Amino acid sequence: MRGNTFGEFFSVTTFGESHGIALGAIVDGVPAGIDLSVDQIQKALNRRRPGQSAITTSRAEGDQVELLSGVFEGKTLGTPICGIVRNHDQRSKDYDPDYMRAGHADRVWQEKYGIRDWRGGGRASGRETLSRVLAGAIAETVLPAEIRIVGFARQIGLIEAVNIPQDLSREQVDEHSTRCPDPQAAASIEQDLLDCKANGDSRGGVIEIWIDGCPIGLGEPVFRKAKALLPGALMSVGAVVGVTLGDAIEDSRKPGLEFHKGVSGAVNESGASGSTSPDRAGISPAANGIQGGLTNGERIVLRAYFKPASTVGSMATTGRHDPCIVPRAVPVLEAMCAMTLADLFLAARLDRSSSGG
Amino acid sequence: MRGNTFGEFFSVTTFGESHGIALGAIVDGVPAGIDLSVDQIQKALNRRRPGQSAITTSRAEGDQVELLSGVFEGKTLGTPICGIVRNHDQRSKDYDPDYMRAGHADRVWQEKYGIRDWRGGGRASGRETLSRVLAGAIAETVLPAEIRIVGFARQIGLIEAVNIPQDLSREQVDEHSTRCPDPQAAASIEQDLLDCKANGDSRGGVIEIWIDGCPIGLGEPVFRKAKALLPGALMSVGAVVGVTLGDAIEDSRKPGLEFHKGVSGAVNESGASGSTSPDRAGISPAANGIQGGLTNGERIVLRAYFKPASTVGSMATTGRHDPCIVPRAVPVLEAMCAMTLADLFLAARLDRSSSGG
Amino acid sequence: MRGNTFGEFFSVTTFGESHGIALGAIVDGVPAGIDLSVDQIQKALNRRRPGQSAITTSRAEGDQVELLSGVFEGKTLGTPICGIVRNHDQRSKDYDPDYMRAGHADRVWQEKYGIRDWRGGGRASGRETLSRVLAGAIAETVLPAEIRIVGFARQIGLIEAVNIPQDLSREQVDEHSTRCPDPQAAASIEQDLLDCKANGDSRGGVIEIWIDGCPIGLGEPVFRKAKALLPGALMSVGAVVGVTLGDAIEDSRKPGLEFHKGVSGAVNESGASGSTSPDRAGISPAANGIQGGLTNGERIVLRAYFKPASTVGSMATTGRHDPCIVPRAVPVLEAMCAMTLADLFLAARLDRSSSGG
Amino acid sequence: MRGNTFGEFFSVTTFGESHGIALGAIVDGVPAGIDLSVDQIQKALNRRRPGQSAITTSRAEGDQVELLSGVFEGKTLGTPICGIVRNHDQRSKDYDPDYMRAGHADRVWQEKYGIRDWRGGGRASGRETLSRVLAGAIAETVLPAEIRIVGFARQIGLIEAVNIPQDLSREQVDEHSTRCPDPQAAASIEQDLLDCKANGDSRGGVIEIWIDGCPIGLGEPVFRKAKALLPGALMSVGAVVGVTLGDAIEDSRKPGLEFHKGVSGAVNESGASGSTSPDRAGISPAANGIQGGLTNGERIVLRAYFKPASTVGSMATTGRHDPCIVPRAVPVLEAMCAMTLADLFLAARLDRSSSGG
Repeated sequence: MRGNTFGEFFSVTTFGESHGIALGAIVDGVPAGIDLSVDQIQKALNRRRPGQSAITTSRAEGDQVELLSGVFEGKTLGTPICGIVRNHDQRSKDYDPDYMRAGHADRVWQEKYGIRDWRGGGRASGRETLSRVLAGAIAETVLPAEIRIVGFARQIGLIEAVNIPQDLSREQVDEHSTRCPDPQAAASIEQDLLDCKANGDSRGGVIEIWIDGCPIGLGEPVFRKAKALLPGALMSVGAVVGVTLGDAIEDSRKPGLEFHKGVSGAVNESGASGSTSPDRAGISPAANGIQGGLTNGERIVLRAYFKPASTVGSMATTGRHDPCIVPRAVPVLEAMCAMTLADLFLAARLDRSSSGG
Repeated sequence: MRGNTFGEFFSVTTFGESHGIALGAIVDGVPAGIDLSVDQIQKALNRRRPGQSAITTSRAEGDQVELLSGVFEGKTLGTPICGIVRNHDQRSKDYDPDYMRAGHADRVWQEKYGIRDWRGGGRASGRETLSRVLAGAIAETVLPAEIRIVGFARQIGLIEAVNIPQDLSREQVDEHSTRCPDPQAAASIEQDLLDCKANGDSRGGVIEIWIDGCPIGLGEPVFRKAKALLPGALMSVGAVVGVTLGDAIEDSRKPGLEFHKGVSGAVNESGASGSTSPDRAGISPAANGIQGGLTNGERIVLRAYFKPASTVGSMATTGRHDPCIVPRAVPVLEAMCAMTLADLFLAARLDRSSSGG
Repeated sequence: MRGNTFGEFFSVTTFGESHGIALGAIVDGVPAGIDLSVDQIQKALNRRRPGQSAITTSRAEGDQVELLSGVFEGKTLGTPICGIVRNHDQRSKDYDPDYMRAGHADRVWQEKYGIRDWRGGGRASGRETLSRVLAGAIAETVLPAEIRIVGFARQIGLIEAVNIPQDLSREQVDEHSTRCPDPQAAASIEQDLLDCKANGDSRGGVIEIWIDGCPIGLGEPVFRKAKALLPGALMSVGAVVGVTLGDAIEDSRKPGLEFHKGVSGAVNESGASGSTSPDRAGISPAANGIQGGLTNGERIVLRAYFKPASTVGSMATTGRHDPCIVPRAVPVLEAMCAMTLADLFLAARLDRSSSGG
Repeated sequence: MRGNTFGEFFSVTTFGESHGIALGAIVDGVPAGIDLSVDQIQKALNRRRPGQSAITTSRAEGDQVELLSGVFEGKTLGTPICGIVRNHDQRSKDYDPDYMRAGHADRVWQEKYGIRDWRGGGRASGRETLSRVLAGAIAETVLPAEIRIVGFARQIGLIEAVNIPQDLSREQVDEHSTRCPDPQAAASIEQDLLDCKANGDSRGGVIEIWIDGCPIGLGEPVFRKAKALLPGALMSVGAVVGVTLGDAIEDSRKPGLEFHKGVSGAVNESGASGSTSPDRAGISPAANGIQGGLTNGERIVLRAYFKPASTVGSMATTGRHDPCIVPRAVPVLEAMCAMTLADLFLAARLDRSSSGG
């Protein structure tokens, strides 16, 4: 499996340069008979699309998806699904083939391959994530409806969201152009990003993702544990510089007796739903929905850290760059989680002899 | 590729339960003609071995490796290398089949597979990492000698190392049973861990890994970037709950203009060695040796966050559990980095048409 | 790797239903810097295209390829190459959703997936091979120019070609609509196939493929030997019911002393180019270019056996079906060989430590 | 996946040189909860073992298997199963490092890797197939009991078996040292092979394999069809020079109207068991249990052609070489079929959304 393919069971191969003819993805491994429409995918792409508000790039991409294969009369065929999005508003004349942008992949890419598509970063462009969102929308149709994946901007620059409802939905998140669902923090962030745009400054931040409703036991020890694949998937997105389960930084400092408090020892009653006491005993406060690398049915909390956007200074004031990619990255990270879980969900069908023997 | 296999080009499959007959690994993809001896591997295993000091478990495992295949007259044959380590000091009578240890994988494992080897965690035991160290030692023979991977305990509990020499070596790290190479911090940590052992408490911490001497361009966009594979590999090790490139938490808060300061704009002079100015310009302070997901030749700094060890309370005072696994995990994380880089190093041979066409 | 992906190093994923929007392939693993044009691929597709002569289906497909990614200014970028061909002349009204054609995959496909694209066989259609030819054309650009792959109709029905020049070229083969380069046999076959069309009869046959100029040592023991991958690749093409190295049927009957005659014993002179005597000693007459599963530099001869085309009787006289698919299958089998060899050729770059260490 | 690994879902990696410390296999992907004992595997190995009769090599290998992992209290754990067999009777002094045996892989192996284990062929030895038989025995426990795989010597040299009972069992086959279950042919073959041993001659032949009881729909279009994987798997065994579905040679010559006779057109009655008429209509006589690349529930007949054994002349009379490997290859080919079907059987669990969604 080469670097453009993700997943062993739910298997996605993406393609396309930012200023080429088209971008897209082939998704193989989708079981037959699942309802899937172009609209579902288009709706997902629209959430990633630039040009949605004053704080994002003014590049209007359109991003209309076309499904070339794998779906027939509204249902998946069990064959590969290929979706493509043609490029339109490319303005490659904004780029100079002899100019390697600092803070970007231009130079290392050139050294690695001896050639590069210099028009906007080619495949190293953030536009590549479009294919991930496309595939993520398909992944969500494979997952049980109970699984909910909701991401939001937890922090942008120095401003942190503190009031987040426990039953947060994507709709609530999308009400804010910042994708920060704490209204007070959102307002501060919005002003901060407008200032950034004016000053050629940029911001990093933190996206937090909540995954609820996972079946118990997703993950394939020892290298494809849920706790390894999910962070690895998120880290593959440009500008993500760290991923933690919950607040790992805090947890690494806690004494064990405090950290594991409330874990009432052994779990040996049959029938107990993954915990030792009526509420949620047996599940360590920092289990974060994953134990021994496997999902335990509880909420998984992931935090992805972003460095500040690379385009700063005079170039950043031209209006075609986001001062902070965190808001638009939310659906991208959700997509990566969906792809990972779809892969593990299908893998788990093979765990036991009884389920198919 | 199932969950017990790691890597596409340098490909490792591990096996073995903690209280079974043996553990080990098959490594496929090692080029022919490389010098490899049992001693090299044994030396690596010895660094992971428990029972080395007052602050680790007293379980004396021996861990003698035997190479069954793939090496002939001191050189690799280009065929799979199988190494095994037999289990001896197992004491499975310490375990109870009906007892599921809280904070461990026991319950989810049972729910997933409907069966488990209850003797000490089976394959979910930390003893599984022995196979990783074995494979990591082989990976290091594949890598160019210039690549140096050195890990150390940056923080244990609340105590953080601050004085670390820039040319740190494994030998310097191993001088300390804590694997914290700041003597003052090491002394405090040692005392803290002895107190933990007495009180049934445990500690988490942070391992920091420095990778130097990487060739430019390791990584396979867009899913197998160096910045995705390295953290994913580290996250697959039990108790690691987060991985960041450098200090991602800090970086996520910095303004872009400050973060990218010193990046003197474009890199367009041919012949420049990956930077725009005499010292290290063009490389963002937080590039951390990786740009666009690819290695750029500079030092890569990884931080892996550990939660406190799971065995606390009365069971922790029996002497057969580490109050903190961070010291012993250092060679395990180094091994995961070596395996990842060996995989990407071999992959990079295929980047260009000229190198083999 | 799922069933729509071929190859580990030169990795092809195909997609598309015969009467869907489009068919195509993504090719990942193509090294950067290789010359590649749409014309090269179009030329290959034209050789597969139906409607070329009186003896093939009258379905005129056009089959114009469009390259969406991976090529920039006439050179490969090292990124995935996606090529697509839109469907036009589909006439799905010729098909009946409730009718399962005997001798076709309709029923088993329906039983497997619970759904199928009944319009012309969906992905089980011979039209799927278009993606293989597309990928094969790209594979040929990866291979050294010395490697020549030439296929031809050795036998159709009962008529066998006997006079074949040893330096046969594709151009010579393509001079005949039957792709049988023995003029006398070709004339008989042409008449036989016209009779078939009139009578609703069909023919099977044998395609023979000659591969010359292979470097020594292609193949990855023990499961990905050249002698396993090449036949496996050919067998994946519909209607192929057997593949042999040379004349395996004859060879299986020969006494060893006769079969291995001319093999002058040991090969121990250094410097000898794979043979023990000036001409070609040391190479068994039936080595067929492969020894121990690896290419030995000599010509590889493959024979692929085809069963008679499945559409017979009244349906076969409508003019939209080939009475024999052997002629049109020649470029498909050549493509499968090119894909296989490209995969093994890239893999061989990793054999030795010296080539990249 | 490198060349020593077979299968994507039921995944086998083999290792070991013929005169090294040990050979073996790791099998990953075996579902948890399956009954598996060392005895089952040992019994399979015993069927492959040399030194069983006057017509095989006198090398007495013993071949005692040891299971190192993956099985606990008689059941599979869902973790990798590693089995090894130590080498004993190696006599490497029979071999000369500077001597490259004609007809063997010695030279190409040396050219490929620049090094080889010259003691008896290293990994290119037939002894490598031991690992396949080991893995095949495990594969059989994964398959439903209804699937029966029985191979036998159909032809050795010029002598062909003609009277074979339709309900042939392995026990019946094993009654004959030739593994030819036609007593008259068996007697002739036995005499012929004794003559070969005396004269330093050798024989090739044909192994026929009957697979019964397959569920409908095994195979993963378009590259991992049952009809591609099974022959590819058999071709990976040394000395196999061709594989056909049924009598492909004969079928390639038949007129379509005759070949497809009895196929009464469409299959459109719901509930019909894969056929259009009372007996077995709808299934073409040459369907051979596979249609459109997928199993259709009928018997699959495979024929594997072997060239004559390579060791001829004076070396062949030393008594340590089989004059014909066909008899001992029967369990090896059965194992390859079992591994292939186990891989496809597990894959088929993922075909539809309803089975796990």
